[in-house]
Amino acid sequence: MLVSALLTSVGINSGLCILFFGLYSILRKQPLNNEVYLPRLLAEGKSQRTSRFNLERLIPSTGWLKNAWSLSEDDLLASSGLDAVVFMRVITFSLKVFVFAGIIGIFVLLPVNCSGDKLDNIDLDNLSNNSLDVFTISNVNKGSKSLWIHFSAVYVVTIFVCYLLYYEYSYISSKRLAYFHSSKPQPHQFTILVRSIPVSSGSSVSDSVDSFFKEYHPLTYLSHIVVHRTNKLRLLIKNAKRLSKRILHSRSDPSHRKYHRSCCFGLCGRKVDLVDHYGKRLEDIEENVRMEQSGVSFTGQEVRAAFVSFKSRYGAAVAFHLRQSNNPTHWTAEEAPEPHDVYWPFFSSSFMQRWISKLVVIVACILLTILFLIPVLLVQGLANLNQLEIWFPFLKSILTITFVSQVITGYLPNLILLLFLKSVPPIMEFLSSIQGYISHSDIEKSACDKVLWFTIWNIFFATIFSGSALSQLDVFLEPKNITSKLAVAVPAQASFFIAYVVTSGWTSTSSELFRVIPLFCSLIKRPFTGDPDDDLEVPAFDYHKDIPRILFFVLLGITYFFLAPLILPFLLVYFCLGYIVFRNQFINVYAPRYETAGKFWPIVHNSTIFSLVLMHAIAVGIFTLKKLSLASSLVIPLPILTLLFNEYCRKRFLPIFVGYSAESLIKRDRQDESDPAMPEFFEKLVTAYQDPALMPIPYFSDTNSITTPLINNNNRV
Amino acid sequence: MLVSALLTSVGINSGLCILFFGLYSILRKQPLNNEVYLPRLLAEGKSQRTSRFNLERLIPSTGWLKNAWSLSEDDLLASSGLDAVVFMRVITFSLKVFVFAGIIGIFVLLPVNCSGDKLDNIDLDNLSNNSLDVFTISNVNKGSKSLWIHFSAVYVVTIFVCYLLYYEYSYISSKRLAYFHSSKPQPHQFTILVRSIPVSSGSSVSDSVDSFFKEYHPLTYLSHIVVHRTNKLRLLIKNAKRLSKRILHSRSDPSHRKYHRSCCFGLCGRKVDLVDHYGKRLEDIEENVRMEQSGVSFTGQEVRAAFVSFKSRYGAAVAFHLRQSNNPTHWTAEEAPEPHDVYWPFFSSSFMQRWISKLVVIVACILLTILFLIPVLLVQGLANLNQLEIWFPFLKSILTITFVSQVITGYLPNLILLLFLKSVPPIMEFLSSIQGYISHSDIEKSACDKVLWFTIWNIFFATIFSGSALSQLDVFLEPKNITSKLAVAVPAQASFFIAYVVTSGWTSTSSELFRVIPLFCSLIKRPFTGDPDDDLEVPAFDYHKDIPRILFFVLLGITYFFLAPLILPFLLVYFCLGYIVFRNQFINVYAPRYETAGKFWPIVHNSTIFSLVLMHAIAVGIFTLKKLSLASSLVIPLPILTLLFNEYCRKRFLPIFVGYSAESLIKRDRQDESDPAMPEFFEKLVTAYQDPALMPIPYFSDTNSITTPLINNNNRV
Repeated sequence: MLVSALLTSVGINSGLCILFFGLYSILRKQPLNNEVYLPRLLAEGKSQRTSRFNLERLIPSTGWLKNAWSLSEDDLLASSGLDAVVFMRVITFSLKVFVFAGIIGIFVLLPVNCSGDKLDNIDLDNLSNNSLDVFTISNVNKGSKSLWIHFSAVYVVTIFVCYLLYYEYSYISSKRLAYFHSSKPQPHQFTILVRSIPVSSGSSVSDSVDSFFKEYHPLTYLSHIVVHRTNKLRLLIKNAKRLSKRILHSRSDPSHRKYHRSCCFGLCGRKVDLVDHYGKRLEDIEENVRMEQSGVSFTGQEVRAAFVSFKSRYGAAVAFHLRQSNNPTHWTAEEAPEPHDVYWPFFSSSFMQRWISKLVVIVACILLTILFLIPVLLVQGLANLNQLEIWFPFLKSILTITFVSQVITGYLPNLILLLFLKSVPPIMEFLSSIQGYISHSDIEKSACDKVLWFTIWNIFFATIFSGSALSQLDVFLEPKNITSKLAVAVPAQASFFIAYVVTSGWTSTSSELFRVIPLFCSLIKRPFTGDPDDDLEVPAFDYHKDIPRILFFVLLGITYFFLAPLILPFLLVYFCLGYIVFRNQFINVYAPRYETAGKFWPIVHNSTIFSLVLMHAIAVGIFTLKKLSLASSLVIPLPILTLLFNEYCRKRFLPIFVGYSAESLIKRDRQDESDPAMPEFFEKLVTAYQDPALMPIPYFSDTNSITTPLINNNNRV
Repeated sequence: MLVSALLTSVGINSGLCILFFGLYSILRKQPLNNEVYLPRLLAEGKSQRTSRFNLERLIPSTGWLKNAWSLSEDDLLASSGLDAVVFMRVITFSLKVFVFAGIIGIFVLLPVNCSGDKLDNIDLDNLSNNSLDVFTISNVNKGSKSLWIHFSAVYVVTIFVCYLLYYEYSYISSKRLAYFHSSKPQPHQFTILVRSIPVSSGSSVSDSVDSFFKEYHPLTYLSHIVVHRTNKLRLLIKNAKRLSKRILHSRSDPSHRKYHRSCCFGLCGRKVDLVDHYGKRLEDIEENVRMEQSGVSFTGQEVRAAFVSFKSRYGAAVAFHLRQSNNPTHWTAEEAPEPHDVYWPFFSSSFMQRWISKLVVIVACILLTILFLIPVLLVQGLANLNQLEIWFPFLKSILTITFVSQVITGYLPNLILLLFLKSVPPIMEFLSSIQGYISHSDIEKSACDKVLWFTIWNIFFATIFSGSALSQLDVFLEPKNITSKLAVAVPAQASFFIAYVVTSGWTSTSSELFRVIPLFCSLIKRPFTGDPDDDLEVPAFDYHKDIPRILFFVLLGITYFFLAPLILPFLLVYFCLGYIVFRNQFINVYAPRYETAGKFWPIVHNSTIFSLVLMHAIAVGIFTLKKLSLASSLVIPLPILTLLFNEYCRKRFLPIFVGYSAESLIKRDRQDESDPAMPEFFEKLVTAYQDPALMPIPYFSDTNSITTPLINNNNRV
């Protein structure tokens, strides 16, 4: 790729960014768009949908930038929870890493690379005609002494990254402990979920749980709630909700009152008032729901799983950490999620069922990975113009126009990849949800992992080895040659990844700010909805979408910083944009749906360690390729030390993210002993994990009373 | 190798076996040898050192065979503990597997192999001139339909082995639980070992432990004993013991009373009575010991580790399973071993120290593995006569003698290998001991694992790929070609491994019965020792020596059963010998030193699964090599299913071997509540984990009182 193609891509994307930022600065001030840009403030009552028109509303302003910039970490913690803090720390961590690597890369390595004359000499008069490869390590001569500068850079940056990783891990651990110590008593701290409950014939799951825990945890056991299979019920309630909304809409807007003929698909028969018609159907469904509810609670739709609550956090932790039964596949315990975080559908209970679904999901992930190579191959075809001309000879005339060819090689491949990639997080979330996780947070955490490795495999390795899954696998089936193959393939794709950072990174950030899709949805929906208050839903941040993207850029930065330092300024711009945009979105848009108290950090840590080791492997290959075998052997201790460092961190910090210590638990329990609000809390705890589908439903037909409980239900399901 | 060379080896080893069995049948009846052959019965008072001479003592008898055969599992459990039962079950498990595989191998596969004509046709007139390869799968023609018989055999045997594995795992799990439920209260059930104890300046480790557990486990905490650094003390006590024994010997045998000159290395000066001389030195040492003991207990030789005892098993388990401190590297808990099982030397306490020593041990193991390839290479040279003639041309004339060449190719290589292998278990035991394990049982378990993988790597793979460590590594660095390389190399070494079974297996078993080394030691020592009663030590069974050997034979049997079924009869003979010999030794020789309650079984399970998967890999390679690609693809699901089966077993049974469930612990605790002996037990528990070196020592100089406490001490150190 030529510098000019890169510049085209940068130009297009900078333009898009400026456009989005400008539009955002105006549109966010229009009260009609508040539900898109300020849903959180709206829900909290800090903003209103209507306001007086004035001219100022049409002039872009930068007040939001100042707000986002000045938000302190404590404020963020208070408003969006520890997960948002961890997310922002991922960005600041990346910023620190790439400022440091950037200074080394741009001021030390880039001049060294350019001074080489392995490829063409640099054409200073017409910079844009230079191949980007001139700026990479490929330009350095074989055996050149200046490669020792690259060698030192690899060491220095590794040490710096490890130091930062340690610091962050310890900082977030302490934050997590502080969060626990300052948190109010919460139901999930006192509760565990028990699955695979053995039931003797003639007794119910509930009896079985009760007798077991009364027998073995008589001092701490408080109560339990057995999980029921409520898929059918949930469907009925959903229908009832939709109908009641329709009735509400018809009533509130009598001008739109419609009539419906009573038979033959509404074509003939006598006219019926639609409201009455819906009302009748709603009554039927209501009746059904109530019958189903009583049926579910009495008859055998019990799942062999139950939420068991205890009188103290310590009691719950003991029951969780000790294997309960002699048969390890019975009475398996896990920590309960927050009540509103429970994922009620797909509630699989038996040990084998979950195990098999896990295997199925693994197979599905592998299939998805293989299938996804088709679009990647397509993209690779676009990046190689010559091949495209061979495939589609009729395009030849168009492709000769410089701008078109630059758009096609510089911008289009990344855009296509981006669009395909958009579909991955929802698919992975779905796969995680059928894997047997019981909470949205666990599902997202698992999806985060899946999306991350999918991205690394399908974008990084597939692009680099630009071949089928099998030829990629081939590389990994001959581990002896991995380093040399990486050393050849990785630098060759430098320009593609620089363009990828610009296209995928910059655009995704600015469209995140602009909220393209929600904006369009809102524009389309607006004329059809009545009072917009009743379906205002504050969105939750999708950690499994954004964390893998950031981590992938960290991987690109770490692996390319010494190969093609030119990538670093673009990454820095991306992280700066991200810093401002995500802070702004946390203030205005997203409300936390759950609180894992920082459990996403270990994923970040592991992925960074992987990036470092991958970078070392490439360095070994590169130095071998450049005939500097001493340097390549001297790099070998580096991955070993990095992995040892990782092992140490796993021992030192990871347990803190798995569970709290006896020390913490007992301290918190003792603090509560004197709290007068505890009896009330325990009363609520007993019913905290009631399936929302089994809650008594309000009389839907009496539409005045619908709105509040329904929205309540909505948030819980 | 020709059939005749194999027959030579079988002949030599059968001769040796018969000799050993015959000699044993006579020698065990000589009362003088009782301390070699019946030390256990001697210690239990069921046998005596002297008896009247009669002629019957010189005629070999088979009564011991009957005794060994008729021993029931319950008797074995009562006399030698669950570990011995598990060990015997390993042998019966292997017997079952190889009887089944043997029937298929000898009656189905062997005829099929012989009917092939890929190699020379079988020479029925002179069987001993046939190459052994005629009996292997190498003789089957490419693409032959009869290979489907081998294919079915692979499936059938895998299913049979997996079924047996499941059955045994579940049987031993239930035995383990039954053992726990029927066991008396034992100190280690109520105790945990805490390491990495943080100590604030100005307070002692003991204060720190006391305040921590009183704070966080006030209801269950009973007492604690801080570990001290007592290496110096232990050395002093050892010296004192040796001296006192010498005095005892001199006193009991006045005829040998010796004198010693007082200076210049005993050459000049005045004569001194040796007993008086020793007595004086002993008094000095005694004084030292007492000073050291009081010094150790008062001053700062405390190690930051302590045995903490609880009032219930459940209390100890809770403290063990829950992380105690916010810093996961502090207050790390592990289950305490039995008091007499504690390994007091090398008591490392800090988290980092143990971690680093673990790394050092890993490096040492790798080095040992590489160094060990030298004797293996030597052995391989011997097996290839031609190469030997090239290296040592002057041997040519001797090597042409048939018998010599047969001995050299058939017997010598295995003997050399065997001698080198003898040194591995003690080395591995030493390495495990510096790895930070705190009990003899843990050390042996870890050594067992090390010896097993060392044997598999250095005997199996080194022999097969008969090259340097690097060329072996090469094979594993190209996983794509592993199966095809295995398929070529494994059948080629069939004859070597058949000879190995005969030499190493048969001889080791019969020499185990004959106890060659202890017998010689006893013969040499006999004239010099006085009353043999005072240093009678009942030996303990070395699980880490014999389990890996048996598992290696299982690996050989499973991998070779369809390649060279001829190996199976020899293996069956080995396991039959082992069955009788080890039962006999458990009755007469070995006393249990510790009780892990079956914790060796998971090692056996994992190793068998590895053997199966290795066999599948070879099968894939063989069928590809034989141009039966459909069969080779149909084998592929087999290792996947086997690994899934293993995963299921890990989930279903392994937790039972890691710790007991809340259910079991609470049941046992409740049983004890009504036991009137418990107060007395708790009183003893408080001092159960006292370092024996810190126990008050008896007055050595008063030799009459020495024997009993010393032997006591001896067993405990």
